[in-house]
Amino acid sequence: MVQVAVFGYGTVGSGVVEVLETNQEEIGRRAGDGIRVKYVLDIRDFQGDPIQERIVHDVDVILADPEIKVICETMGGIEPAYTFTKKALMSGKSVCTSNKELVAAHGAELMRIAGEHQCSYLFEASVGGGIPIIRTMNDALTAEKIDRIEGILNGTTNYILTKMERDGAAFDIILKEAQELGYAERNPAADVEGHDACRKIAILSSILYGHNVDYKQIYTEGITKIMPRDFAYAKALDCKIKLIGLSVITKEGEFAMVSPRLVPSYSPIASVNDVFNGIQIHSNMLDTSLYYGRGAGKLPTASAVVGDVVECVKKLGTSIPAAWDETEKKLTEIGAFRQRYLVRMKGKPEALMQKMEDAFGKVQAVQIPEAADEFAVLTEEMSEREYQDAAEEFTEIISMIRS
Amino acid sequence: MVQVAVFGYGTVGSGVVEVLETNQEEIGRRAGDGIRVKYVLDIRDFQGDPIQERIVHDVDVILADPEIKVICETMGGIEPAYTFTKKALMSGKSVCTSNKELVAAHGAELMRIAGEHQCSYLFEASVGGGIPIIRTMNDALTAEKIDRIEGILNGTTNYILTKMERDGAAFDIILKEAQELGYAERNPAADVEGHDACRKIAILSSILYGHNVDYKQIYTEGITKIMPRDFAYAKALDCKIKLIGLSVITKEGEFAMVSPRLVPSYSPIASVNDVFNGIQIHSNMLDTSLYYGRGAGKLPTASAVVGDVVECVKKLGTSIPAAWDETEKKLTEIGAFRQRYLVRMKGKPEALMQKMEDAFGKVQAVQIPEAADEFAVLTEEMSEREYQDAAEEFTEIISMIRS
Repeated sequence: MVQVAVFGYGTVGSGVVEVLETNQEEIGRRAGDGIRVKYVLDIRDFQGDPIQERIVHDVDVILADPEIKVICETMGGIEPAYTFTKKALMSGKSVCTSNKELVAAHGAELMRIAGEHQCSYLFEASVGGGIPIIRTMNDALTAEKIDRIEGILNGTTNYILTKMERDGAAFDIILKEAQELGYAERNPAADVEGHDACRKIAILSSILYGHNVDYKQIYTEGITKIMPRDFAYAKALDCKIKLIGLSVITKEGEFAMVSPRLVPSYSPIASVNDVFNGIQIHSNMLDTSLYYGRGAGKLPTASAVVGDVVECVKKLGTSIPAAWDETEKKLTEIGAFRQRYLVRMKGKPEALMQKMEDAFGKVQAVQIPEAADEFAVLTEEMSEREYQDAAEEFTEIISMIRS
Repeated sequence: MVQVAVFGYGTVGSGVVEVLETNQEEIGRRAGDGIRVKYVLDIRDFQGDPIQERIVHDVDVILADPEIKVICETMGGIEPAYTFTKKALMSGKSVCTSNKELVAAHGAELMRIAGEHQCSYLFEASVGGGIPIIRTMNDALTAEKIDRIEGILNGTTNYILTKMERDGAAFDIILKEAQELGYAERNPAADVEGHDACRKIAILSSILYGHNVDYKQIYTEGITKIMPRDFAYAKALDCKIKLIGLSVITKEGEFAMVSPRLVPSYSPIASVNDVFNGIQIHSNMLDTSLYYGRGAGKLPTASAVVGDVVECVKKLGTSIPAAWDETEKKLTEIGAFRQRYLVRMKGKPEALMQKMEDAFGKVQAVQIPEAADEFAVLTEEMSEREYQDAAEEFTEIISMIRS
């Protein structure tokens, strides 16, 4: 029997306990040994909960217990998770986490420390919840050279965009609905401003390069400015609007960004709807592959943490190699990235098309019946910098979505 | 440098050489050592091809060379692949294969032999081409209890069904087109009769149970009887028609079958089109997840073989545990499986609905404008046996598709 501890008895932490208990038999068979939760670290007491007798308030009790081989860190946030994780790894205990903030901020250091102490730092649950995307990149696509990752990495924003499209309702209204249903936080900024997706694409980019991609260098734009009419233009172009975490290697450079994007309806990622996540990978031999599932939620996330625990138990006493090192990977300035732009304009096409073609080059005009006072154009591929320069000449621009 | 050999320089075998050469650097980094093809076994000579000097006609030359650690078996078919694989494993050489016939027929025995000789028998490429579905089931979803696998496992038939739906053309015409494009074999029976999908769902079912599921016990029906009008009925129900390899655990038993099925358009597997494959898994914690990509073709399949080679190289001298053992897993008779049925009937609903409801219970009538001389009904859930018994009373039945 392998003894483990859970740090934080919140949504994911209590899910870990539930997964380990519900699927005890299967997990034991696959790990080659039974797994038992000996301690749960939390500042609260949980009186009346069967977990109560295993609750510990002092992390040192757990760290000092040589029986504990693996820790599930499901606290979230940087501190005290960072300090606790470092101490655990230094005492040779593997740590499996769902904490994307911590992985994005200090993952490389923590993996190095694990390597120095014959244990592992694993974080499958930090991106895509229960979708095994980290394992796929590290262990499965080993014969591939990946050049493009496009991820719908945040369930809250995907739910909002899906509902806005279906109901034709405004962002604020759908956000409120999502909050009432528990799909969005009371303070929704981390989701709707794209910060959560930014941490996740930083993690996937770090794996892609084997070096640390600092999330702070990733251009990030959320969905708060998306309007119901945008979906009508997208539809006219047979596209969907998705919040995409993009990481891509082109001949102009190596880029990462988070922003709403038009994706063609026929593309597999376009059919990732509601709270689901999907990660589409393009690589030189396999071409396009896609990994789809629940990207958040108690049990899917907990399942990914437990999957990591199983791997640690199978490899006790050894260290699973770091997915990336501490060298900083500098990406190319986003200004050089070439893409297309759907630009909504106040006014009539007749009055503006000539000036627009002078500024943006050849463009395709798009009109929707519900809006007589405006139109849109889809540009050819041009760099962000070229686009921004050209856009400065137009006070008529309502909004822009990349494609 | 690790020396490997390739058995069979056909489509996949030459792809393996190409993948290893093109992505040499990435593969070497991930394997922790360079990988070099020392021999290629083939009865042909390939004069003028750079491979020529590495071609060997006698398998014993390769088996006797202690430098060779891993073999890629890309010959296909049972013999001589079976004999060669056994000999290779017995001499402690790991074998990575794309040969689904052999894995379905003798996989358990070959994995046992590998385990007895400190080497591995891996077969990621045998199901879903480049989609890492075997690895996902074995290594990623280890905290899950899977109760349903639905796979679009054959690219040829998925291409044909997608084209039939889009063009409204007959099966024969699209098959001929697919043959001209190289998407279907001259002798298409293995694909269009469902035998290929049957081998693959047998492999996935064997992993699911950890015991050997004999493919011969799996009820298998191909797509040769699908007619253009079927897609119109499916559309009226907001469904697609897909050839599905199904493996499912219900309260009535454990079932596997291959047949055309109606899948709801909103379901992620419905958007797996053209030659792509997709495998949708339902499990008790993660709920639904889907894995999508190219299920066949030279490079995607070869990439999966090479991914297995990388794993073998990382674990040289050890044996990767068998995914299932030789115990035979007996599935429940398909007659007990409960599902819905879309039944096309000659005649008018008015004349037949009462008799149909007497036989099938409550049904939903479906009519399409293009067919005045017929209609269809969708039954409620009933067992295969109940359906077959009830259907015997009707000479008017044109066709039936399960849902």
